[in-house]
Amino acid sequence: MHQDLLQHIGYFIHLSEEEKEWVSQRFIIRTYQKGDYFLREGQVCREAAFIQSGLLRYVLTKEDGEELTVDFNKEQEWTCNYASFLDKSPSGTAIQCIEPTTLLVISYDDLQLLYTHVAEGQKFGRLICEFLYVEAIKKVRSMYTHQPGERYLQFLDTYASLAQRLPQYYISSYVGVQPPSLSRIRKRLSK
Amino acid sequence: MHQDLLQHIGYFIHLSEEEKEWVSQRFIIRTYQKGDYFLREGQVCREAAFIQSGLLRYVLTKEDGEELTVDFNKEQEWTCNYASFLDKSPSGTAIQCIEPTTLLVISYDDLQLLYTHVAEGQKFGRLICEFLYVEAIKKVRSMYTHQPGERYLQFLDTYASLAQRLPQYYISSYVGVQPPSLSRIRKRLSK
Repeated sequence: MHQDLLQHIGYFIHLSEEEKEWVSQRFIIRTYQKGDYFLREGQVCREAAFIQSGLLRYVLTKEDGEELTVDFNKEQEWTCNYASFLDKSPSGTAIQCIEPTTLLVISYDDLQLLYTHVAEGQKFGRLICEFLYVEAIKKVRSMYTHQPGERYLQFLDTYASLAQRLPQYYISSYVGVQPPSLSRIRKRLSK
Repeated sequence: MHQDLLQHIGYFIHLSEEEKEWVSQRFIIRTYQKGDYFLREGQVCREAAFIQSGLLRYVLTKEDGEELTVDFNKEQEWTCNYASFLDKSPSGTAIQCIEPTTLLVISYDDLQLLYTHVAEGQKFGRLICEFLYVEAIKKVRSMYTHQPGERYLQFLDTYASLAQRLPQYYISSYVGVQPPSLSRIRKRLSK
């Protein structure tokens, strides 16, 4: 049984021993090398995954070809393009592994089955969605109102443990500035 | 009983006659004049509301004092600052009635009760959240990638019926341009 996954779900709902067994069987293990894609831009996202180990970035390609890194997910979090997963639209972002990564993958259909088969499955679906909603809105708000310096502070707040694991150009892309500007922001903040 | 509300909930889940009665009793009617606020910026949003009639805008005030209109809701839709409602954080936006408006209002606590009291309540909460999530993400994506002309087309696509009901300066604020630029965009698109 996937103990880390079951423990994570256990934060949200109660699972009986029988349900734990059943849930574990819905997920398959898949491993990725650094640079591999879990999802390509333009694909419909038909799977969600719990990250056992590793780190992924969400990449959006602007019309002029520039790549933006718009989000990250690390171990013990979920990854998928949830909007594409929900409404079956082509994904606007790619999801790329930036470290060797091990995922526990569940298909859309099996997740729907989980919602109905497990006694508190619908509640789990609601709580996960509510969590993702709050995260997404924080991001919208930051884009509307924050200057790069504040966006960098928000990055540190949200992704504290990642600052050391990520290449600087991913962080500067996320913050929305060129790498030299990020250096200046960091120097200013360290004073 | 609030038939329009019950019909709306009926798109998502089945309600027994007894549940319809119970759900109706959780909502209170409240009326607003044009210009009134359902929620002020900085308040925690402790209520959600189904709009029986009227039109509301979401207003975000930038640090330099400029007001941005970032969203709209009309009759037969829900209104609330859902992120503030969920995590009890101060709302980053105000919600203002821009027409005389009648709302059916439910408190946070009563909505949690609805999730557990109604047989398919958790499923309703999940589906509403999934719907709101997809809408929110479309908006993030548009802000990252779209030029004002495309954002205006997206506005027409999302809010088709509102183009005639809204003052031009709310639309130009939503699209992210000054009113004269919006006129030029409209002229170009009408060709």
